[in-house]
Amino acid sequence: MTVKDIKSRPAVIREETTVYDAIVMLFLEDVGTLFVVDEKGLLQGVVSRKDFLKAALGSADMSKIPVGVIMTRLAQIHTVTEDEPVLQVVRRICENEVDSLPVVRPHGKDGFKVVGRVTKTNLARLLMELGEGR
Amino acid sequence: MTVKDIKSRPAVIREETTVYDAIVMLFLEDVGTLFVVDEKGLLQGVVSRKDFLKAALGSADMSKIPVGVIMTRLAQIHTVTEDEPVLQVVRRICENEVDSLPVVRPHGKDGFKVVGRVTKTNLARLLMELGEGR
Repeated sequence: MTVKDIKSRPAVIREETTVYDAIVMLFLEDVGTLFVVDEKGLLQGVVSRKDFLKAALGSADMSKIPVGVIMTRLAQIHTVTEDEPVLQVVRRICENEVDSLPVVRPHGKDGFKVVGRVTKTNLARLLMELGEGR
Repeated sequence: MTVKDIKSRPAVIREETTVYDAIVMLFLEDVGTLFVVDEKGLLQGVVSRKDFLKAALGSADMSKIPVGVIMTRLAQIHTVTEDEPVLQVVRRICENEVDSLPVVRPHGKDGFKVVGRVTKTNLARLLMELGEGR
């Protein structure tokens, strides 16, 4: 079983989106993490509920700060590819203490297209299916 | 395998705590959900990152609103007990679309003592251990 079998659709936004609008999108899409992409759809960063709460604690105006200011940048992000075994991804999620990982495909010289997300919800569902012998 | 084998320590606060202080505690305890208890340690409600983000979107002053105003109240909360089989809890987490459940012990007439929490992180770790044949 690989990432392809359990991944979900990713929710993406642009770097210029305000923190306020991004939080609204988080609720509309009902996800815990948004992936920040450029005009070509290439991954630039990740913002999670935790990042948004940190921003909310600060006194800055959330309707003015762009998401690019608070996101975790590409160099610090863990990613997975569709053909990775699920067990390897489970380990990456546990060891890096993240709620989700972007599923990517290499693109051009140093770029990554975002093609999905793997979350702890995907893992919980997998555990349920395994437990029920499906 | 039952809830007792996989549960974590709960992070609890009082209803009077401000939303601001509660978010700070969320970071200090490194959890996604806080359980709200009364002076006897009995469960009154639950507040999650999602509830805090909703509060942050509003214009109210987070350093003035008490957590009791934004929490989900006891009647609406799903709970589990220590002797429940893990598979049943996995199903409850998936079906109710929550990140964690309070582990409780009945106390008095209608009360519940909070004795732990089960989260998607516990489930991801369990999946990792099962996959590694531990």
